[in-house]
Amino acid sequence: MQPTSQPDRAAIVDLLGVLAYGELSAFDRMAADARMAPTTALRAALSEVAALEMGHYRKLVSRLAELGADPQQAMAPFVEAVETFHRRTEPRSWGEALVKAYVGDGLAADFYLEIAQYVDESTRQLVTEALADSGNAEFAIREVRALIAADPTAASRLSLWARRLVGEAITQAQRVAADRDALTTLIMGGVGDLTGIGLLTDRIMGKHTQRMAAIGLSN
Amino acid sequence: MQPTSQPDRAAIVDLLGVLAYGELSAFDRMAADARMAPTTALRAALSEVAALEMGHYRKLVSRLAELGADPQQAMAPFVEAVETFHRRTEPRSWGEALVKAYVGDGLAADFYLEIAQYVDESTRQLVTEALADSGNAEFAIREVRALIAADPTAASRLSLWARRLVGEAITQAQRVAADRDALTTLIMGGVGDLTGIGLLTDRIMGKHTQRMAAIGLSN
Repeated sequence: MQPTSQPDRAAIVDLLGVLAYGELSAFDRMAADARMAPTTALRAALSEVAALEMGHYRKLVSRLAELGADPQQAMAPFVEAVETFHRRTEPRSWGEALVKAYVGDGLAADFYLEIAQYVDESTRQLVTEALADSGNAEFAIREVRALIAADPTAASRLSLWARRLVGEAITQAQRVAADRDALTTLIMGGVGDLTGIGLLTDRIMGKHTQRMAAIGLSN
Repeated sequence: MQPTSQPDRAAIVDLLGVLAYGELSAFDRMAADARMAPTTALRAALSEVAALEMGHYRKLVSRLAELGADPQQAMAPFVEAVETFHRRTEPRSWGEALVKAYVGDGLAADFYLEIAQYVDESTRQLVTEALADSGNAEFAIREVRALIAADPTAASRLSLWARRLVGEAITQAQRVAADRDALTTLIMGGVGDLTGIGLLTDRIMGKHTQRMAAIGLSN
């Protein structure tokens, strides 16, 4: 689907701002979660995924500066929503940490990639790059599958946990949508109408279902 | 000074192991400390320094694997000393976090660089690279100086804090030296005798004094 109008600069700044704060916040949350790993090797594996987020953050902030936006001001409107999401989804086990890193980050990435379809080519490329090399897919799939193999009751607990992650993500996304007119206008302009919103949601939930299956969890 | 004998492989594995665990541990400690920053920009600056540690970690662990050593086993003997150091030096303010990142990491780096003089060329190069691009010097100097300018009483508090960091570092280094014969033999073989140890200590403390002066603190 193509943009129906030139996206507002304010919407692009919002997109880059929420993404940048999301990366910064994911960084130290994931760094702390890595401490729950049962071995040093697994702790290092999640720590390395966390460290990648700072590379993405740097690129997003550079782009904001290029656009003449103040990165701190661009991030500020999204701090509360991102922090509330993390506060309400603090993993209490290594399995929860892995599912959050894989399912939670995957869901957020798919949503941002959808929005990126409605912005200029160079912003789209930056966002796509920032979200592509998260490098946590194979590692998380393998480890969650191993946890479930070792303890079959883990599957239902972690499936519930994944549903909670999705619920909190939707709650915070709605909160942001209600507050940020430019971003909401960009998305509505991009998808066209309510049918378009429905299709976007279907695409995102379709990918989420695939991830859940890959990791051995039920939706 | 040149090695008086071919360093024991066990000593090299120890050196890489303690360094690797030090980087991994510095990573999540610093990521957590960054949360104390007064602004998002400063939080990101310390988070970026933390993220660099994981790149170093990756290189050190690769080298351990090349040498046929199990990285987890190589790190294991140093977990307790490194963790005890961090537990006893948990920063309670942004200023303490900055001084720890600059003065504490600088001290550790100088010590490892001294030991690296007594190992083979390729290990030395790896260790030197891993410790060189910490990239936190200018940032920390500027920020600590700003803190002291805004509140002159901070200088004496942070000077005391730096002395505590040095004291704890020495305590943990002595503990490691008492436990790890191969590493201690490597150092003693390198420096030659007790006069050599004295000179090594003088070099390390000389650089520490320079860092303290640069940051505006008294030794």
